[in-house]
Amino acid sequence: MTLETVKNDFISHLNKISAYQEALGLIFWDLRTGAPKKAIEQRSEVIGTLSSEVFNLSTSDQMENYIKQLNEHKSELDELTVKMLEECEKEFNRNRKIPEDEFKKYVVLKSKAESVWEEAREQSDFAMFEPYLKELVDTTRRFVGYWGYEGNPYNTLLDMFEPGVTVEVLDEVFGKVREAIVPLVKGIEQSAVKPDTSFIYQQFSKDAQREFSLHVLKELGYDFDAGRLDETVHPFATGLNTGDVRITTRYDELDFRGAIFGTIHECGHALYEQNIDPALTGTPLSGGTSMGIHESQSLFMENFVGRHPEFWKRHLPSLKKFSPEQFKDVSVESFLSGINESKPSLIRVDADELTYTLHIMIRYEIEKGLFNGEYEVSELPDVWNRKYKEYLGVVPSNDAEGILQDVHWSGGSFGYFPSYALGYMHAAQFKNAMLKDIPDFDQHIADGDIAPIKNWMTEKVHRFGKTKKPLDILHEATGEGLNAEYLIKYLQDKYAALYDLEPVK
Amino acid sequence: MTLETVKNDFISHLNKISAYQEALGLIFWDLRTGAPKKAIEQRSEVIGTLSSEVFNLSTSDQMENYIKQLNEHKSELDELTVKMLEECEKEFNRNRKIPEDEFKKYVVLKSKAESVWEEAREQSDFAMFEPYLKELVDTTRRFVGYWGYEGNPYNTLLDMFEPGVTVEVLDEVFGKVREAIVPLVKGIEQSAVKPDTSFIYQQFSKDAQREFSLHVLKELGYDFDAGRLDETVHPFATGLNTGDVRITTRYDELDFRGAIFGTIHECGHALYEQNIDPALTGTPLSGGTSMGIHESQSLFMENFVGRHPEFWKRHLPSLKKFSPEQFKDVSVESFLSGINESKPSLIRVDADELTYTLHIMIRYEIEKGLFNGEYEVSELPDVWNRKYKEYLGVVPSNDAEGILQDVHWSGGSFGYFPSYALGYMHAAQFKNAMLKDIPDFDQHIADGDIAPIKNWMTEKVHRFGKTKKPLDILHEATGEGLNAEYLIKYLQDKYAALYDLEPVK
Repeated sequence: MTLETVKNDFISHLNKISAYQEALGLIFWDLRTGAPKKAIEQRSEVIGTLSSEVFNLSTSDQMENYIKQLNEHKSELDELTVKMLEECEKEFNRNRKIPEDEFKKYVVLKSKAESVWEEAREQSDFAMFEPYLKELVDTTRRFVGYWGYEGNPYNTLLDMFEPGVTVEVLDEVFGKVREAIVPLVKGIEQSAVKPDTSFIYQQFSKDAQREFSLHVLKELGYDFDAGRLDETVHPFATGLNTGDVRITTRYDELDFRGAIFGTIHECGHALYEQNIDPALTGTPLSGGTSMGIHESQSLFMENFVGRHPEFWKRHLPSLKKFSPEQFKDVSVESFLSGINESKPSLIRVDADELTYTLHIMIRYEIEKGLFNGEYEVSELPDVWNRKYKEYLGVVPSNDAEGILQDVHWSGGSFGYFPSYALGYMHAAQFKNAMLKDIPDFDQHIADGDIAPIKNWMTEKVHRFGKTKKPLDILHEATGEGLNAEYLIKYLQDKYAALYDLEPVK
Repeated sequence: MTLETVKNDFISHLNKISAYQEALGLIFWDLRTGAPKKAIEQRSEVIGTLSSEVFNLSTSDQMENYIKQLNEHKSELDELTVKMLEECEKEFNRNRKIPEDEFKKYVVLKSKAESVWEEAREQSDFAMFEPYLKELVDTTRRFVGYWGYEGNPYNTLLDMFEPGVTVEVLDEVFGKVREAIVPLVKGIEQSAVKPDTSFIYQQFSKDAQREFSLHVLKELGYDFDAGRLDETVHPFATGLNTGDVRITTRYDELDFRGAIFGTIHECGHALYEQNIDPALTGTPLSGGTSMGIHESQSLFMENFVGRHPEFWKRHLPSLKKFSPEQFKDVSVESFLSGINESKPSLIRVDADELTYTLHIMIRYEIEKGLFNGEYEVSELPDVWNRKYKEYLGVVPSNDAEGILQDVHWSGGSFGYFPSYALGYMHAAQFKNAMLKDIPDFDQHIADGDIAPIKNWMTEKVHRFGKTKKPLDILHEATGEGLNAEYLIKYLQDKYAALYDLEPVK
C-alpha cells in the first residue's frame, strides 16, 4: 500500500468519526431544545450506539495501524495530515491506556452520577451525591495514574482542556488576579456609589427579548444562514459543522440580562466555530483549539463588546423601542451602572464580571487539592464554605447554593473550570493586541461596525481550528505568553470608574 | 456458538441498524424544519456515511451468516425472531441481487434526478427531466430483471410498497371505483347545488391556525409527550421511535384547509407510529406494515373523523373563536358544503376526496404501462394529458401542472402511488368494521370522545407494526380481503347528500 493510500484511508476513517459526532451533536441539540420527553429512552440507546462507534473507531487496531504507518513516514506528510495524526495519537494513547472494562464502568458511572446530582441538588443534599463524587474522583485519580503526569497529577487534567497550562502557571496568574480583585471588591463595598438596578427587574416580554437578541446577533456578524437561535434552560453554542453553528439562550421576563448577555456570550463561541477554515471540515481539527480560547471568544464578545459603553449608547434606544416603559427614564450612564453592579454572591453563573474569577479560583483550588491528596471528598462542603467566606465574604446556607451548584463534577469534568478564568485573561490580552491594529475600536462599536473586530479574531484565532495549540495562538496574536496584567488593568479601570474608586497606579 | 448467542448477536446487529436509522430520521426532520442552509453540504456527507453504514450492515457477510444460521434452526425460534429474520432476508435478497456498482450509480442518479426535477418543474420543461426519468425507468426495469417477477413486472414494484397487491387486484378494484366515481363527477357537474366557498379564502392568522391545530390534535389523542408539531413546506409525519413521532403542517393564511386537514391527516400517521408495541422498538418490525395501511390511518382520520359532520358541529364554534370575522355568518351546513366542494382539477395534492382517486389511477396506469413496455418515457406528457382529459375532463396547460407535478418518480419511487388509493379503500373498510364494535361512532365524534376509535385502531392495526402483513391485518380486522365497495358506498352517499343527486341503488 502506498503512503498516499494509507493517508486517504486514514482521512476517510476520520471523516466517518466526524460524521458520527455531527449526528450526535444534532441529537444533543434536539434533546435540549424540544425533543418530546418519551423520546429520551430510546434516543439514549442511539447515543450509546453512536458514541461507542466513535470510541471504537478512535481506539481500533485500524487506528493504531494508521498511526504507526503514518508515523514511519511523518517527514513525508503534509502539515495538515501531521496535525491530524498528532491529534488522533493523543486521543488514542489517552483512551487505550485505560483498561476497557474500567472505561465502560466509568461511562456508566458518569451517567448515573449526573442524574443523582440533579436529584441531590434539588434536595440540597450533598450526602446523596457524595459516594458518586468519591467514585468519580477515585476513578479519575486512577486514570491519571495510567496517563502519567509531570510535576503535579492535576496537570494531566488541566492539559485535557487547556494544553500547556499547568498548576505552576495557574498559581501564578490566579495569585496576581486575586491580589488585584480583592481590594477592588473591598473598595466597591465601601464606595458611596450604589447603582440603581430597579430597571432590570421589570417585565420585558420574551418575544421582545428574542427580537432584540436577533437584532444584536446580526450586528455582531453571526451568520443566520449557518445557524439559528433557540431557547433552552441552560444556554449553549454547538458547532455541528462550520455551516451549522447553533446557539441557545434563556428568557427571564423579569430580568433581561440573562437573555441579552447570554446571547452575546454564545455568539462569541459561535463566531469561532462559524469561521474555522472550511478545509478542516470532517477532520478532528475542525473545532476550537481549547476550552480557554473558546471562552476567550465568548467573553470577549460579552464583556469587551457587549458591555462596552459605546455599545449601549448605540443600543439603548432600540432597547427602549422593545420595552418602552421599562427603559423610559433610564440614561445610558445609569444603564451601564446598573448592569455592571458588582456584588459578592453565591452562584457562579449569576456572578458579575469582577467577582466571577473568584468563583473559578475556589473551584480550581478544590480540584487541585483533590488530586494532590490535600482534600478528601467528604470534606468538600466545609472547604467550599470556608473558601466562599474567605474570598467573597458570603457563606451558602445549603448545599444547593454551595457545593452542588455546578454540573461539571457530576460529568467527571475535573480540570475544566480554570478555562473560564483563562478565557477571560486571553480575551483581555487579545483586546489589547487588537487595539494596535484597530486603534479606533471604540468608534467601531459606536458605529455598529463589528466586521473589522470579528475579522481580526478570524484572522488570528478562528480560522486555525485545532491546527495551532492555544498558547501558540495567543503568542502569535499578542506577541507574548499568558499575561494576567491586561485583565487586571481592565477590571481596575472599569470598576474605578463605575464606583468612583481611587485609581490604582 | 449456541443458537441463543447467534440470536442475541443478530438482534444487537438489528438494534445498531435501527439506531443509525433513528439518527438519520432526526437529520431529515431537522433539514426540513429549520436547519440553516449552509448546514446542508456537510450534513449530506453525514447522511451518506450513515446510510452506507445501514446498507452495509443490512447486506454484510455477517448478515448473510445470521440469516443462514437462524434459518437452519427456524423451527426453534420464537415468533418475533422469525418475523425479524424474514424481514431481513427479504431486504438482504433484494439488495444483494443488484451488483454493487449498479446500486451506487443508482443512488447517485436519484440524487441528481431529484434536483433536476426541481429545476425542470420550476421551468415547466419536461425535456430537461426526460433523460433522467428514462435512466431511472431503465435502471428500475433492469433491477426488476434481477429481482424477478410473477405475472407482471410491475408486480415486483407494487410489492415493495404493498406486499401482496398485484396488477390483477388493482385493475379490478380501480375499475370498480372508477365506474362509480365517473357518474358522480358528472352528476356534480350538472347539479344545481353550487357550494359557497368564499369563507375559505379569508385571512386566518398562522398563529391562530396553529392553536386550533394543537387543540384538535389533543382531542384526537396525539400524545404531545411523544411528539411535536412543526411547520414545513410539505407536511409529513416521522416516527423516530414510538416515543418520538413528529408531525409537520403548513399554514396558508388565505386558505386554512391545508393546515387543518393536513394536521389531521398527519395525526393519523402519527397515531399509528405512537401506538406500535414498544417491545418492537429497535427492530425492523417497529414501523408501519405498508404504505397502504399507513395511508389508511391518515385518510381515516382526515376524512372519516376530520370531515365528519358531527366533528364540525362540535368544532365550528371553536373555529369561530380563533377567526371570528371569517366564520361569523357560516353555518355548519354551509361550512360542510364549502369544505367538501368537488371539482375536477389538475393537481393531485389539492384534489378533493372524490376526484383524488382518479389522479392516482392515472399514475397507476402510466407506471404499469412503463414497466409493461406499453409506454416509453418520451410519450409520457402526451399520455398524461390524454388521461387527464379522459378521467377528469381537464388538460394541463404546461408540464409543471401536468407530468412534472409529483416528486415520486424523480426519487425512483415507482409502485408507490397505488398505496394512496388503497389506503383510502382500507380506511372505508376499517370504518365499516369499526361500526360493528362501535355502533355509536357518530356520537363519539359529536362528544369529542375519540379514544374508543383510536383504541380500536391500535388494537386491530397499530400495535402490530410489521409483525403482520397488510392484507392479514385487513382480513383480521374486517373479516375479508380488499373490498372497494365500502369506499364506493361512502362516496356515493356523501356526494349524493351534498349535491342533491339521485341516490345510487
